[in-house]
Amino acid sequence: MPVNLSAPVASDLLSVAGVRIGVTEAGVRKVDRKDLTVFLLDEGASVAGVFTQNRFCAAPVQVSREHLAAGQGIRAMVINTGNANAGTGAQGLENARATCAALAAQLDVAPAQILPFSTGVIMEQLPVERITAALPAALADAQAAHWGRAAEGIMTTDTLPKAYSRQVEIGGKTITITGISKGAGMIRPNMATMLGFLATDAAIDPALVQPLVKALADGSFNRVTIDGDTSTNDSFVLVATHQAGNTAITSLESAEGQALQAALLDVAQKLAQAIVRDGEGATKFITVRVEGGKTGAECRQVAYAIAHSPLVKTAFYASDPNLGRILAAVGYAGIDDLDQTGIDLYLDDVHVAIKGGRNPAYQEEDGQRVMKQQEITVRVLLGRGEAQDTVWTCDFSHEYVTINADYRS
Amino acid sequence: MPVNLSAPVASDLLSVAGVRIGVTEAGVRKVDRKDLTVFLLDEGASVAGVFTQNRFCAAPVQVSREHLAAGQGIRAMVINTGNANAGTGAQGLENARATCAALAAQLDVAPAQILPFSTGVIMEQLPVERITAALPAALADAQAAHWGRAAEGIMTTDTLPKAYSRQVEIGGKTITITGISKGAGMIRPNMATMLGFLATDAAIDPALVQPLVKALADGSFNRVTIDGDTSTNDSFVLVATHQAGNTAITSLESAEGQALQAALLDVAQKLAQAIVRDGEGATKFITVRVEGGKTGAECRQVAYAIAHSPLVKTAFYASDPNLGRILAAVGYAGIDDLDQTGIDLYLDDVHVAIKGGRNPAYQEEDGQRVMKQQEITVRVLLGRGEAQDTVWTCDFSHEYVTINADYRS
Repeated sequence: MPVNLSAPVASDLLSVAGVRIGVTEAGVRKVDRKDLTVFLLDEGASVAGVFTQNRFCAAPVQVSREHLAAGQGIRAMVINTGNANAGTGAQGLENARATCAALAAQLDVAPAQILPFSTGVIMEQLPVERITAALPAALADAQAAHWGRAAEGIMTTDTLPKAYSRQVEIGGKTITITGISKGAGMIRPNMATMLGFLATDAAIDPALVQPLVKALADGSFNRVTIDGDTSTNDSFVLVATHQAGNTAITSLESAEGQALQAALLDVAQKLAQAIVRDGEGATKFITVRVEGGKTGAECRQVAYAIAHSPLVKTAFYASDPNLGRILAAVGYAGIDDLDQTGIDLYLDDVHVAIKGGRNPAYQEEDGQRVMKQQEITVRVLLGRGEAQDTVWTCDFSHEYVTINADYRS
Repeated sequence: MPVNLSAPVASDLLSVAGVRIGVTEAGVRKVDRKDLTVFLLDEGASVAGVFTQNRFCAAPVQVSREHLAAGQGIRAMVINTGNANAGTGAQGLENARATCAALAAQLDVAPAQILPFSTGVIMEQLPVERITAALPAALADAQAAHWGRAAEGIMTTDTLPKAYSRQVEIGGKTITITGISKGAGMIRPNMATMLGFLATDAAIDPALVQPLVKALADGSFNRVTIDGDTSTNDSFVLVATHQAGNTAITSLESAEGQALQAALLDVAQKLAQAIVRDGEGATKFITVRVEGGKTGAECRQVAYAIAHSPLVKTAFYASDPNLGRILAAVGYAGIDDLDQTGIDLYLDDVHVAIKGGRNPAYQEEDGQRVMKQQEITVRVLLGRGEAQDTVWTCDFSHEYVTINADYRS
């Protein structure tokens, strides 16, 4: 059951001028399932992406990187579920290119103007004929209002679609931002979530779109983890259609640039957190905040050690304040010169450990009270500097094992 | 249920001249349970150890390190279960020292000649009075033949005691090696705390004992993982009593040194593997062998990424040959310049992936056949060098979650 997450209301999702979306059933792996989504972008849109750092990156990730680098202007994105087209060798690359070529022919653009994305099982060849056969139906479905359908179209083991919209005033103009994402397992994004798409109609110097998508990923998708498994297919894409009528933003440091970035980050964080809330088997949403480090990187390293510990995650599942497990994870996070006598631990407002030992004032019932909540903040004070960082994760339940032991059966 | 592991037969366990062991019930956490073990060493024994790299190391680990460094000659080791004396601050250190002082007084040796070890729950103070009160009973129990009782005395959540003996001829003399270990089990799991104690009567230059224990740990206990959580209390100790009558070994590179090291490593590996076979919820024993790396370290890094992946471990549990998950783990193991097109994957003798893609000759039923076995070897060929390394692990089952979620409830 997802943690404090509900399906988006279609009418709450705002269209982004210059973006239309069509969704259909291609029967990639299963029938009667929306598994093919096409984004159509007006000419002039700027597109940038960040992709998995997994060295076993999927064929569509390799092709998307190539096509973005080609710089011919992206006019469409095609996303299939049911098959990740990863671990598929030269044939996999050929299949990803064939999908782009088929869509390009129908749109009368170049194949390098198409970005392909795939998600699903690994090490099986993509059924490229079924995908290309379904493209006309996807195109016929294309509408600006189809963000809700797109959120459904990219789901795999997600229990709910994930989509958010918001608006922000910049230079007297209303800027719209809408995004979608999917999880729900093999989630420890490194550069991006398994799939995230964010679009805005803001006018902005196209050269700023790539640094912007990187900053957004670092502040959102790169801060969530479910099981520590970095996927082969992680992709996070930002589209700017420049159609809102605002004076084009020329610097991310300007007031307008900061306002846009903050609004985009808000949506990106909600999308990233939604993946955790709908994490496989999740029953709790955990914020791990590490403060007082020498660098943000070491805070993040400690936060991930806690967020990846199966012992910590099962304790959260059980609502058991077995909090020594958190101290142990801090200890093995890999900070060689860490002094345990400088460390404090809080669970929400409960001061559990002080200077590396149990706080004499700590009462187990206080820990128990917090552990029973659906949303919990773990706060670790390293006591060795001024840096801090935050990671979001979920607990580890029987349901996770069931889902992943039964995935293909 | 442990995987291909049975309790040692007491009569198979060989005494090591110069070592006597006493075991008793101190009621550390529960009554009617052997929870206090004392090793008595004849004067002249050489003792060396390797300890957890967790920065939150337990008080007894800190005290053991100090006492070994003091170099006064170790005469006894005292081990309690039920309480790890970790995350206990200054009081914890005081309690570990008090335990040593009490035993030292009864043996008429210095406190620095005692090594303390603890395993059990974290962040609770050690009941030092109950331990010191039980020391006379432990001493009264001391016999050379009590290795089987010692293996029972250090168990926590282990389902079976773990002990092995073997002999080796060196320079015409019979050298005896006996060791015990503990891991994690079912009743009150806490950290997967490992303790290993290995003794031999071989005569050997005392200066060689520390490099020897380090090499043994690297080849055995440092090659196993159950859940990736490094304990606060991990300790592995080697005792050499020098009483076998062999000409003292003066080099680990000599024929005699190599023969001793090989025999010790054999026992250490069996003890380490026994911990995995009895891992919490384990139903499969998995050997992960990575070959063709540039360095042993990178092979080990890849092997651990596979061995720690919850997705890989749940697939083994389900006997599901969802082997793309293994490729994904190889890809995110952190080798920046890894070329996926050089990688082959075998499951026992089944050639699953070739040059980064699915082997066209691979049949899923072959993968299925191997996955159903209780013992499976994953073999990854990186195709970039001559180095190799091996890690042993187990699968990830519902039972693991049950064990760790039900702790203390």
